[in-house]
Amino acid sequence: MSLQFDTVALIGKPHHNGANQTLRSLYDFLHQQGVRVLLESRVAEQLGIDGSEACELSELGLIADMAIVVGGDGNMLGAARIMARHGVPVLGVNRGNLGFLTDLSPLDFEAPLVAVLDGHYQIEERFLLSVSVYRYGEQHAAGTALNEAVLHPGKIAHMIDFAVHIDDVFMYSQRADGIIVATPTGSTAYALSAGGPILTPQLNAISLVPMFPHTLSCRPIVIDADSEVKLVVSPDNIDDQLQISCDGQLSLSVHPGDEILIRKCQRKLKLIHPLGHSYFNVLRSKLGWGSKLF
Amino acid sequence: MSLQFDTVALIGKPHHNGANQTLRSLYDFLHQQGVRVLLESRVAEQLGIDGSEACELSELGLIADMAIVVGGDGNMLGAARIMARHGVPVLGVNRGNLGFLTDLSPLDFEAPLVAVLDGHYQIEERFLLSVSVYRYGEQHAAGTALNEAVLHPGKIAHMIDFAVHIDDVFMYSQRADGIIVATPTGSTAYALSAGGPILTPQLNAISLVPMFPHTLSCRPIVIDADSEVKLVVSPDNIDDQLQISCDGQLSLSVHPGDEILIRKCQRKLKLIHPLGHSYFNVLRSKLGWGSKLF
Amino acid sequence: MSLQFDTVALIGKPHHNGANQTLRSLYDFLHQQGVRVLLESRVAEQLGIDGSEACELSELGLIADMAIVVGGDGNMLGAARIMARHGVPVLGVNRGNLGFLTDLSPLDFEAPLVAVLDGHYQIEERFLLSVSVYRYGEQHAAGTALNEAVLHPGKIAHMIDFAVHIDDVFMYSQRADGIIVATPTGSTAYALSAGGPILTPQLNAISLVPMFPHTLSCRPIVIDADSEVKLVVSPDNIDDQLQISCDGQLSLSVHPGDEILIRKCQRKLKLIHPLGHSYFNVLRSKLGWGSKLF
Amino acid sequence: MSLQFDTVALIGKPHHNGANQTLRSLYDFLHQQGVRVLLESRVAEQLGIDGSEACELSELGLIADMAIVVGGDGNMLGAARIMARHGVPVLGVNRGNLGFLTDLSPLDFEAPLVAVLDGHYQIEERFLLSVSVYRYGEQHAAGTALNEAVLHPGKIAHMIDFAVHIDDVFMYSQRADGIIVATPTGSTAYALSAGGPILTPQLNAISLVPMFPHTLSCRPIVIDADSEVKLVVSPDNIDDQLQISCDGQLSLSVHPGDEILIRKCQRKLKLIHPLGHSYFNVLRSKLGWGSKLF
Repeated sequence: MSLQFDTVALIGKPHHNGANQTLRSLYDFLHQQGVRVLLESRVAEQLGIDGSEACELSELGLIADMAIVVGGDGNMLGAARIMARHGVPVLGVNRGNLGFLTDLSPLDFEAPLVAVLDGHYQIEERFLLSVSVYRYGEQHAAGTALNEAVLHPGKIAHMIDFAVHIDDVFMYSQRADGIIVATPTGSTAYALSAGGPILTPQLNAISLVPMFPHTLSCRPIVIDADSEVKLVVSPDNIDDQLQISCDGQLSLSVHPGDEILIRKCQRKLKLIHPLGHSYFNVLRSKLGWGSKLF
Repeated sequence: MSLQFDTVALIGKPHHNGANQTLRSLYDFLHQQGVRVLLESRVAEQLGIDGSEACELSELGLIADMAIVVGGDGNMLGAARIMARHGVPVLGVNRGNLGFLTDLSPLDFEAPLVAVLDGHYQIEERFLLSVSVYRYGEQHAAGTALNEAVLHPGKIAHMIDFAVHIDDVFMYSQRADGIIVATPTGSTAYALSAGGPILTPQLNAISLVPMFPHTLSCRPIVIDADSEVKLVVSPDNIDDQLQISCDGQLSLSVHPGDEILIRKCQRKLKLIHPLGHSYFNVLRSKLGWGSKLF
Repeated sequence: MSLQFDTVALIGKPHHNGANQTLRSLYDFLHQQGVRVLLESRVAEQLGIDGSEACELSELGLIADMAIVVGGDGNMLGAARIMARHGVPVLGVNRGNLGFLTDLSPLDFEAPLVAVLDGHYQIEERFLLSVSVYRYGEQHAAGTALNEAVLHPGKIAHMIDFAVHIDDVFMYSQRADGIIVATPTGSTAYALSAGGPILTPQLNAISLVPMFPHTLSCRPIVIDADSEVKLVVSPDNIDDQLQISCDGQLSLSVHPGDEILIRKCQRKLKLIHPLGHSYFNVLRSKLGWGSKLF
Repeated sequence: MSLQFDTVALIGKPHHNGANQTLRSLYDFLHQQGVRVLLESRVAEQLGIDGSEACELSELGLIADMAIVVGGDGNMLGAARIMARHGVPVLGVNRGNLGFLTDLSPLDFEAPLVAVLDGHYQIEERFLLSVSVYRYGEQHAAGTALNEAVLHPGKIAHMIDFAVHIDDVFMYSQRADGIIVATPTGSTAYALSAGGPILTPQLNAISLVPMFPHTLSCRPIVIDADSEVKLVVSPDNIDDQLQISCDGQLSLSVHPGDEILIRKCQRKLKLIHPLGHSYFNVLRSKLGWGSKLF
């Protein structure tokens, strides 16, 4: 029987012993299965395997027909933003603890991986956000986010004044530490710490979660994901080192007076899950929903 | 020019002086416009107008091609559940304070009402929930809700043990004072007091908001409105006077061991708004988003 | 060496197999230590030990110089309100899970208990609330609470209008499902589910936690425990089956127009802890503070 | 009759027209009352009054027997930290909106001010926090705070790992955006935005409010104000630009591995209020407790 995936990219948490061991095991295992394995350059450096093929993350997206990411959800985010651009499906192997995005265990990946290579898996699509900063009407910077875009001052404990428009209709203006615009994927990450609701992965919605708002009656708002969110940063902000941060990994510089447009990306991340994967199982486990107060 | 609406039902808050004055003014005004006016029986009793036509709420739905409700959002809920069944669009006149559902002012309804009668208006559809209680596999009671369905003990400060399934997949079990299952319309009512997020009216989503849950990490969850929510009440609950309450107005009796199915209704409420109506304006005004802390 | 405690009362969760086994073991063990053991009547019935001494809970308070309560925090609450009245110190043996008030394990109570009997222990004092309902200026009902007093409608999902005064100064009026007035001991129970803060046990403070308030900016307030809290129930409440519940175990009937005075009791509960007991250890364990989100 | 206060310092919001007008009016008015007026240097520059006396803020504390601060609560904070050191009582005149600390209106200060000068006033004491950063066992930096001390990363959206000890007993370790340690005075400022409880001004307590904690069950904790709070910043934090911010105005640099001690200051702020001042009135007004949801 022919393999579903011929060329697999291996991506991982750099400078991490546990991750390196798992990457090595995965390399050997995939090799044995007759799969062509491409190592992300940093992984290749770390592993130092003779005769292995290595290339940059962005190149991997052009060649591989599947990517395996070893690490935590943070590592997945970085790889996912690139792979989504190229439509390459991604499978996550966690570093020892179940993640929201990394469901394979490093101690027990063989059987589920064989099943996946043989074509027994589910594909789950997750949408990303496209974030653009406009200055004097022109696009000044842009990025994508799988979890969330966060408007915040460069320095903490400084307030920002900004207005929020949905599909060009004014929603509210706010003085706050910032605002989180989260996807369903991101709703269990930073937005959850900030008091936002959980959105189930397939919900076509975006949540707007204000950070420490001065208006006490301000609450998280959930809108349709096909709406366009516009954040207008007041020209009166004194601080000129504002930022919009994508997944906590990529920062775009924002000046007073700038407008930030946030929209659903065209391209989606394709997550590979072994058959039988259950989102609610992960949720219960990660959030400790078994333990009761009294 | 012919009127868009020939037969208008007048429905109102009973035993309330202010509402009665407004109902009387509306009656006279509609009469002058050449509209046939039907009074809800209780309104007819209160007003005592010679020669006026009166009928029961459920009958109004069969005859009228528009209903005007005078009162607060609470009055609207009662009328809306009936009118939605018959597809009759509804217009709300508030009792003096802007409501989420009642946008016409009692002091200034003439001009907007003429515009509406002439066909200048927006129709906004809001979905309702259908709630069914199953006992030993058979449907035992049923109702609908525009705002929310609330599972709760008959008595407060008693805990309930229950499990939540979404599309027949187990989500979690919980010990709590109860749970609120809210529509976008209801997201600014009881669910908001309970810490739930605001869902914009056109979002196809339902929020599940636990009430005083023992699991501190339990948070509001937003799911697709086309999903089916099943609440399974543990047979171990000692209290046998549990209830599921629809919009705080209709109570269905629930026993330990019962299952409650909550789904989106087929029929939607048609809300009539004057042109230029803005949901976000209402939101800012009702939630006092102008006032800042410091 | 003489024992610190000569006469020990045994109190327990009724009709519970695990608790009964532990009570039996405790009885035998204390007997061997030469301690006079008094059984609470219901415990005596359950155990059926020949020649054992039994009496009512209230009598135990007059005779015993220490009480051991077997069960959960709920069982402790009931016994504690009585024992506090008589100044009898109380030791808790949990039913298998660490409790906030019951720190001895049923599987491992011998060594710590011997140490306690020999005088090696800490006494921790916890204050209780005294709750009085006044109707037409006269005291109509009264009770005490170790955890919290909760004003609520007899039925859920009915709102109450009430005003709160602190030391006879008007604080605010509120429409809500009710209000929780909690001690530091109660701050980790129902009040915590309702969003209240944790108060460390020795803090001389009371927290007021509104339940689902209509005023979104209403927040938990912490006041000095030597202040007097007065809840004035609006005469306009339609529902006449209101209640004030003490520790979820004792209910006082409240009518529209009644005033409820809540003050610190003179008598305190004396909790016995083995040496080395740490409140923060219990807190971390009960609230699962080890587990992180991402 | 002799004046209670002979020498009054005038302090104000710099570069603000409204504040300058009020400062000028206050200067003229106090002069007429026969009071010696000292202008803070920046105020003197702005007003440019011939023959007026001016000195630095810190000097004012040595000479004046009362200080009047014109501006918002933020201006009060800066002046209060200095004046508290010298025991000089402070009176606040707001910039047009009632503040928590500035209760006199700029449009109507004459009558209440005459009363205050004649000795008809209340003094309310508010405690401050003393904040010290220790590095390798030695004090490295120190400051005071009237509202709150905030441990945070220099950059937002970076997490900090830290442990909290109360009176040298380990309470918990946390990964979060930071933590707010607030006085009762600060409980209605930044800590309130972050979900902390309101502490009444005379409560001898401090609240610890985690900022976006990864442990979802982590909640605000209120401790005795005579306890010592120690924050131990994990040596594992990568970010070395951490800070502890006092009242959002003074920043102390913090390195991974540093310890921060937070204690109640010996010296208290003395706030002057006109007779009849009510904290709860201010609270209701500032938090908009009149407006209800539905």
